[in-house]
Amino acid sequence: MSRGHFIGLNHHRRMLADRERMAAYEAAITEAVRPGMRVLDLGTGTGVLALWAARAGAEVVAVEPHAVIEVARRVAADNGLADRIRFVRADSRELTLDAPVDLVVTECMGNFFVTDEMQPVLRDIPRHLAPGGVTLPHGISLHVAGATLPMWNELAFWEEPVGGFDFSGALDFARQSAYVVAAEPELLVTAPMCVAQFGLVKSPDEFSLQASMEVLHRRTIHAVLGWFDAQLTPDVVLSTRPGTRTHWGQTAFSVPATSVEPGDVVEMEIELVMDAELKSRWAWRGVIRRPGRDDVPFSADTAMRFGGAA
Amino acid sequence: MSRGHFIGLNHHRRMLADRERMAAYEAAITEAVRPGMRVLDLGTGTGVLALWAARAGAEVVAVEPHAVIEVARRVAADNGLADRIRFVRADSRELTLDAPVDLVVTECMGNFFVTDEMQPVLRDIPRHLAPGGVTLPHGISLHVAGATLPMWNELAFWEEPVGGFDFSGALDFARQSAYVVAAEPELLVTAPMCVAQFGLVKSPDEFSLQASMEVLHRRTIHAVLGWFDAQLTPDVVLSTRPGTRTHWGQTAFSVPATSVEPGDVVEMEIELVMDAELKSRWAWRGVIRRPGRDDVPFSADTAMRFGGAA
Repeated sequence: MSRGHFIGLNHHRRMLADRERMAAYEAAITEAVRPGMRVLDLGTGTGVLALWAARAGAEVVAVEPHAVIEVARRVAADNGLADRIRFVRADSRELTLDAPVDLVVTECMGNFFVTDEMQPVLRDIPRHLAPGGVTLPHGISLHVAGATLPMWNELAFWEEPVGGFDFSGALDFARQSAYVVAAEPELLVTAPMCVAQFGLVKSPDEFSLQASMEVLHRRTIHAVLGWFDAQLTPDVVLSTRPGTRTHWGQTAFSVPATSVEPGDVVEMEIELVMDAELKSRWAWRGVIRRPGRDDVPFSADTAMRFGGAA
Repeated sequence: MSRGHFIGLNHHRRMLADRERMAAYEAAITEAVRPGMRVLDLGTGTGVLALWAARAGAEVVAVEPHAVIEVARRVAADNGLADRIRFVRADSRELTLDAPVDLVVTECMGNFFVTDEMQPVLRDIPRHLAPGGVTLPHGISLHVAGATLPMWNELAFWEEPVGGFDFSGALDFARQSAYVVAAEPELLVTAPMCVAQFGLVKSPDEFSLQASMEVLHRRTIHAVLGWFDAQLTPDVVLSTRPGTRTHWGQTAFSVPATSVEPGDVVEMEIELVMDAELKSRWAWRGVIRRPGRDDVPFSADTAMRFGGAA
């Protein structure tokens, strides 16, 4: 027996093995691309979006800052599409195109859409886009819902002595974190709620989301989950809601473990804040209102960066 | 059901839950520290080495560049040791101590010992050390052995079409990687071999390791595994060899999947190279000699950095 993880191409393998992602993007690109269109693929990775666009008849420029672009180049050549895709190893913001493009495709979304790396890149898209040009995805919506999470029991690790010392103080820090989970819909304890909708290019640098979620089930709530739906084309949506099997999963914003029941309400504000180094962080606060029982206020902030691997 | 991973303190939780690491360091620190000694803990993390040293009667300075030091500070206070440990959030190379220390403790080792982050820190230790002062660990040995790895079948992913394209070209890139595994000793197909021994402070920036490993079992070889043994004190060794259950595991340097049998020999050279950005990378080459059958030469280089999470 051996367990282990692949360092090299594993992240890309996981994305390519994500059937929901693959099916949605293939359908959307095939629908959106007409022969002769000019397409820009931002963050091409192993190149599969560029390959689909080229196969549909586009002239493609595929940009990627990392060495993985050599994999994409090789695969394009092996599939006879090297003359239809120009690969550029660069930060796309340093890129100057000969002519603007009709379509920008990308899939560099984080678990709750926002990532440090991509926000400035998205903002830069209009520079490359011809009049009437579009982005794929062209719209994003953000959703939240309260959930019970069995894995939360891992936090109990800190309640037992470690190395002969009381480590329970670490719990306060562990609860300040946003986590990545892949939850089943049965775990939701509140109604899901759409808290934001915006265009890909217009995704905000900083925002504040408000949610008031009605409790549907008597259960313990551990976290509020956040996820995105990406409208790839008018006909194709890629959703990362609980129950989907994408590699994205959902972001879990912790709340104090609290027993809730129908009639209770979770009120919450989630803020996206840019710190001085232009790294985004999440801050959230709110209250679990339980008519006839004590309200449970909560607040947290991912300003703490703990270092080390995930 | 939910699966997921904790971003925040998870890495530190895994280290604290590593019983072999914990038992070895607790025994070693308890053995090495005498009341009144001055101890420097490099990269204290959640602070457990510093806590053991303080409990054994030392005056401790604990250094850590990341926010996790706030967890250590809190835990030290909760355990009544705040007055015996001075926590300093800094790169230790920026640190100036009032007086040199008798003992430097650290556990910032990578899977095959070397890490980008720690080599310069280790080199800087003598500046803090009193005459006659020692390091814990004080010696490191590196070991290698050929192995068969069932997980290698994951590479077969690239042999099937992906998104309707031939992605088999990615295999050449996937095989240029070093992987992290946790292998059982039954998977070894050659005798293990010690290829280097050095003091903690004298760990080299660049080196070239030579190995000639005799095949013991008729099996398929997929990789040569590398691991370290750390001599913490004269009495305590922390080993990460196959079969141990540490969070380190072993580094797997890939070779072409090849059937081997007793009498065959794997000859190999592993080079640690610093690139222009002072990031270390591995390069390895060698030959699988099979008397009466074709030799199998191989070479690889982790110069490719693929970006994205592991």
